[in-house]
Amino acid sequence: MTALEDLPTPALVADVDILERNLAEMARALPGPRLRPHVKAHKCTGIARRQAAHGHRHFCGATPRELAGLARAGLGDDLLLANEVVDPTRLEALAQLDARVTVAVDSEATVAAAAAAGLREVLIDVNVGLPRCGCAPDDAGRLADFARSRGLSVRGVMGYEGHAMIVADRLERDAATSKAMALLAAAHAEVGGDVVSAGGTGTFDLNAIATEIQAGSYVFMDTAYEKLELPFAQALFVWATVLSVSPQFAVADCGLKALGMDHGDPAMGAGKVWFCSDEHVTFAPHEPARVGDRVRVYPAHVDPTAAYHERLYLVSGDRVVDTLEIDLRGW
Amino acid sequence: MTALEDLPTPALVADVDILERNLAEMARALPGPRLRPHVKAHKCTGIARRQAAHGHRHFCGATPRELAGLARAGLGDDLLLANEVVDPTRLEALAQLDARVTVAVDSEATVAAAAAAGLREVLIDVNVGLPRCGCAPDDAGRLADFARSRGLSVRGVMGYEGHAMIVADRLERDAATSKAMALLAAAHAEVGGDVVSAGGTGTFDLNAIATEIQAGSYVFMDTAYEKLELPFAQALFVWATVLSVSPQFAVADCGLKALGMDHGDPAMGAGKVWFCSDEHVTFAPHEPARVGDRVRVYPAHVDPTAAYHERLYLVSGDRVVDTLEIDLRGW
Repeated sequence: MTALEDLPTPALVADVDILERNLAEMARALPGPRLRPHVKAHKCTGIARRQAAHGHRHFCGATPRELAGLARAGLGDDLLLANEVVDPTRLEALAQLDARVTVAVDSEATVAAAAAAGLREVLIDVNVGLPRCGCAPDDAGRLADFARSRGLSVRGVMGYEGHAMIVADRLERDAATSKAMALLAAAHAEVGGDVVSAGGTGTFDLNAIATEIQAGSYVFMDTAYEKLELPFAQALFVWATVLSVSPQFAVADCGLKALGMDHGDPAMGAGKVWFCSDEHVTFAPHEPARVGDRVRVYPAHVDPTAAYHERLYLVSGDRVVDTLEIDLRGW
Repeated sequence: MTALEDLPTPALVADVDILERNLAEMARALPGPRLRPHVKAHKCTGIARRQAAHGHRHFCGATPRELAGLARAGLGDDLLLANEVVDPTRLEALAQLDARVTVAVDSEATVAAAAAAGLREVLIDVNVGLPRCGCAPDDAGRLADFARSRGLSVRGVMGYEGHAMIVADRLERDAATSKAMALLAAAHAEVGGDVVSAGGTGTFDLNAIATEIQAGSYVFMDTAYEKLELPFAQALFVWATVLSVSPQFAVADCGLKALGMDHGDPAMGAGKVWFCSDEHVTFAPHEPARVGDRVRVYPAHVDPTAAYHERLYLVSGDRVVDTLEIDLRGW
């Protein structure tokens, strides 16, 4: 049995007890198909299997590789590519998967690409306020008709209220979510279909319109989501070794190539983070540090953190209980 | 022959003509062993081979995997691990490589780890002003004696003036470099040995003390280094496809998992970047964009960008002339 202490560092580690509590809490709030776990947060079929064990059999992903990996893992009951893809080769491969595959479309071009690839089911992706993908809400009905004219089955709508997702104040987050979902509901009335797919970890219990919530980060959590006081706890950290100690600071081997940095510096229990460089985090330790000490580094954003690592170690206390490949990386 | 246009996106691409001009310019300024290319910038033995073809046979890296890969590729004439590592397993593996291996040490603990692993040569890593690894300058002589007492050969000193590296004003950069290198020279006087290893792309022609310069980013360049008006041009970009177009903005498939973000948002020729999310860049295009258009996204920091990608495509004009594995990723 490997001890946490003995892992080669930097190592991506999740506390499996916290992780399982997060999974159970979400499955209680959004049982079965009320949650469509978004695998982009972890890119790991081993974690998707745990989500399935909690009753969620419908998944979504952001890349063709994520969907292909889920299908290969026998998790292909109902897969949603919650993103636009126009590459014919990869769309055709999705159509060939041993899985039910639905793709998001938001333009005539993406509808045409899906139809040409032999895909059969789509969701109309609606822009509900985040300047990213999604058609204008008042164009959704027309686009659904266009998709049907190309032989596609339109299962409903999708709209990501990403601009509401990490609003710190719960009332403001609720208001932003409601405003976004009013747009999605109006679009849904024009589009039809059974599915209204939206949401994420930050709005999982606020979004009253979605028939399914696309949450992913709740599994691991990060310092950005931690501020929202959600009923999920931080399970993920990068395990690092102190390499160098000076009077005012210490340095551990967890840097920019082990951390998603778009939400800023990571946090540490062992001290205050000064800055990160390619392979190092420099921090002011609370207690005197020694070379060889192990420390936990909590990322500010889990998704681009997991995407840097080859594997995820699950630990219970200080024992490594499982090693999972981060097998859905790349595109 | 694959066309750039036909690459699956997002793709890490370097313009080989610009890259070769960067290599030639550096080889002219710092011929042969005057440059010790730092492979952390590209993590690619294919690029290291091109650097060797320009006369540089001594490399450095930041991780054991980088050194092991170089040795396997026959590039092990003189490898420097320009970082502290205390993991016995990986240090012992370095000692077993079919290569000349020198490691940086900055404490009794790192000296002891190197000696115990069977390594034979070290550089004393000196803190020259950047709060990261490196012993205090006035402790370098004592540490060198300690290393010799453990049977290690001390080849000299190393000190990275990272705090001077991207200072925009050349005179200020020069002053910061000189101040840092005065500390390194004093330490070197106490330590002895032939090697004074320091520097990087930003100080390659300012550092008058180093016997060898550890530059890496000059190969690719990025928007941070671009501001320094160095004689190197931006060769690297992420090739992306426009997925969605709205009246005010467009969205392409190059996001946080394809870009190092610690230096901020990337730049684009096709428009002004608004923000990045996991798989997207939202930008205001200068000219009307269409779904399926290809665009170039220039990262703000090359090192953590390359570390996300499996391969690098070399293009000349719009033709793909080579595909290189980013084979030195991980630790």
